[in-house]
Amino acid sequence: VRTISFLSDYGVADEFVGVCHGVIARIAPEARIIDVTHGIERHDVRGGALVLRNALPYMPPGIHVAVVDPEVGTRRKGVALRLGEDERILVGPDNGILWPAAERLGGVLEAFDISASALRLEPMAATFHGRDVFAPVAAHLAAGVPLAEAGDPLDPELLIVHELPVPRFEEGELIVHALHVDRFGNVALDVSHHELAAAGLKLGEPVEVEYEGTRYGGRYARTFADVAAGELLVYEDAHRALALAINRGDAADALGIGRDAELRIRPGG
Amino acid sequence: VRTISFLSDYGVADEFVGVCHGVIARIAPEARIIDVTHGIERHDVRGGALVLRNALPYMPPGIHVAVVDPEVGTRRKGVALRLGEDERILVGPDNGILWPAAERLGGVLEAFDISASALRLEPMAATFHGRDVFAPVAAHLAAGVPLAEAGDPLDPELLIVHELPVPRFEEGELIVHALHVDRFGNVALDVSHHELAAAGLKLGEPVEVEYEGTRYGGRYARTFADVAAGELLVYEDAHRALALAINRGDAADALGIGRDAELRIRPGG
Amino acid sequence: VRTISFLSDYGVADEFVGVCHGVIARIAPEARIIDVTHGIERHDVRGGALVLRNALPYMPPGIHVAVVDPEVGTRRKGVALRLGEDERILVGPDNGILWPAAERLGGVLEAFDISASALRLEPMAATFHGRDVFAPVAAHLAAGVPLAEAGDPLDPELLIVHELPVPRFEEGELIVHALHVDRFGNVALDVSHHELAAAGLKLGEPVEVEYEGTRYGGRYARTFADVAAGELLVYEDAHRALALAINRGDAADALGIGRDAELRIRPGG
Repeated sequence: VRTISFLSDYGVADEFVGVCHGVIARIAPEARIIDVTHGIERHDVRGGALVLRNALPYMPPGIHVAVVDPEVGTRRKGVALRLGEDERILVGPDNGILWPAAERLGGVLEAFDISASALRLEPMAATFHGRDVFAPVAAHLAAGVPLAEAGDPLDPELLIVHELPVPRFEEGELIVHALHVDRFGNVALDVSHHELAAAGLKLGEPVEVEYEGTRYGGRYARTFADVAAGELLVYEDAHRALALAINRGDAADALGIGRDAELRIRPGG
Repeated sequence: VRTISFLSDYGVADEFVGVCHGVIARIAPEARIIDVTHGIERHDVRGGALVLRNALPYMPPGIHVAVVDPEVGTRRKGVALRLGEDERILVGPDNGILWPAAERLGGVLEAFDISASALRLEPMAATFHGRDVFAPVAAHLAAGVPLAEAGDPLDPELLIVHELPVPRFEEGELIVHALHVDRFGNVALDVSHHELAAAGLKLGEPVEVEYEGTRYGGRYARTFADVAAGELLVYEDAHRALALAINRGDAADALGIGRDAELRIRPGG
Repeated sequence: VRTISFLSDYGVADEFVGVCHGVIARIAPEARIIDVTHGIERHDVRGGALVLRNALPYMPPGIHVAVVDPEVGTRRKGVALRLGEDERILVGPDNGILWPAAERLGGVLEAFDISASALRLEPMAATFHGRDVFAPVAAHLAAGVPLAEAGDPLDPELLIVHELPVPRFEEGELIVHALHVDRFGNVALDVSHHELAAAGLKLGEPVEVEYEGTRYGGRYARTFADVAAGELLVYEDAHRALALAINRGDAADALGIGRDAELRIRPGG
């Protein structure tokens, strides 16, 4: 019996998550379920995709369910994907939510369309595939049903791909984009550990952040408390990507930064 | 050892739920706990009762604790009920929260008053029976203590009953009531799958929803995305009951609908 | 394999808690995790310390992780403490969050500095020691690694102590302080069961609560519903300490009481 991780935008106010746990426990009583989070913003496929990609390496290999599904009940497919690393299997809607995680963890070796899976619950509700499709399929897979019995083979080339913005390096400045804002207002940017190494920022030195023509002074720091309360910092976050924060404050709010905002970061200031 | 499901209005901001888990784990270390939800609105016995009724069929049979308990510490009884289906046992305050679930799952075969149960924690706090009465009783039952040892026999006829509104069918229109509003503003109505079949609504056809004299045009659809963003739909929800929603919007908010609102729904419009 | 309890200010909107669960499950697949709560207010070390102290006696003895960590990534130490009662081990930052719980549960018999623990994850992020230090250390301890292998011995005298306010008894009145406000607006005061017994309040009798010169009439009651809706009550709460509430209302909000507010409580009114 394998572990099932579960991420969604179902929230914790309603019983959606609990019901999916119940469905899994009925089918695979021994399977352990780890809730990655259910706090993805409603219908935010990209936010869910990024959180899944970042969290997955920390989860025990197993079955990984991710449901942010604004098109539930339409012709969009449900899929189960076997990845190159660790025999991980992703389960969810085919709307791009699984893509960044699949890309990072060895790519998709095999894909199955589970929209009409024999492992579904019947009658299937048009509005709650988490309960009627994704949870039961995941539970059966965790209990040992072979992936090929979950649905019909699908060409991985046909999967919906989720494109992310790409940073640029121009004349000594980084041109970066806000990928995601967490509940503390910390802004994850689209610069990885390796790209960052090439950017020439020096720990402890001042940086200038420009957004929509306004320039903000800050510091390239290791952690929040390396700068004064209320001060802006640029730092390598827990996923080793560049991020923007205000120590004990809310950077996204203070600068008015939302998803995909383009910022310019340069040394000095 | 049996599974324990747990529903309450304790929320997740405080430690109430965690403490109940701890109490259960000390008594029945092997028992699995499934949190149905703890997001029931504070003191909303009816909301809790409906969520419990709808969620229970998806839970593994076992011990089912439900605590929404505005009268905690008064003379209201605590009860444990054995249901007709699957040997399920419900545990909670005797204020109606358990009733709709009991009715749906085979009725109450045996009832026990656990207010002064020998299985309680001592000293018992007047304000936290979840921790001191319901969790420990459920844990002992899950660990194999016979139900008759949980308390004193009680005539099931004496249990508090929770009455729900009843829909009417008049001259080609459904007169229905709002039972519950979820966090997306979707409104569950008091029309079951079987009643709905008799109402003659046709999938894909326009419907008119009237509330407090105002008429709203919508569509009887299978799922949210079958109508345009911002459009009203009437649909069979995940519990196979009639519901009202706005695709990517908040129907309860847009129409000003609260608990028990009476609406008229008719074909056309 | 021992149980791990986990308390933090990570919230449930993001994946921080889920990722820590994943880290633990990879290291100690058999360890059960009980989430005490993750709803501690951001950076509220004192709130976390009080909740931990109150909740711990209800948790199965084991490894107890508590992370409210505004100074993460600085020179503040991470520690693991063996307590006098039940072989409990506390794991978290050395900022006072563990202190009240340690004091209540037998004191600290042994302390270890785990800041540079060999059991950490590498590379360690400067901003997420929950994932990279506290969760993996706790998991290895739960799986049986001896405490002495978690870090370097530390003199318990050097641990950061969290001082709490102290109530006074003057000329027939209690002078007390707000320790903590829960999500219902109930205010925990710094008067224990034993101190309360000495104060001479009589169940059911009127009391007067004075705050910033304004006097409020209330009642010393056993539970909320012993007074009318909207009425103020002073009562012994679920942790057997004195508390202030309004039946079906929000006492903190109504009286404008925040952390450390000093109130005077006297019989009559």
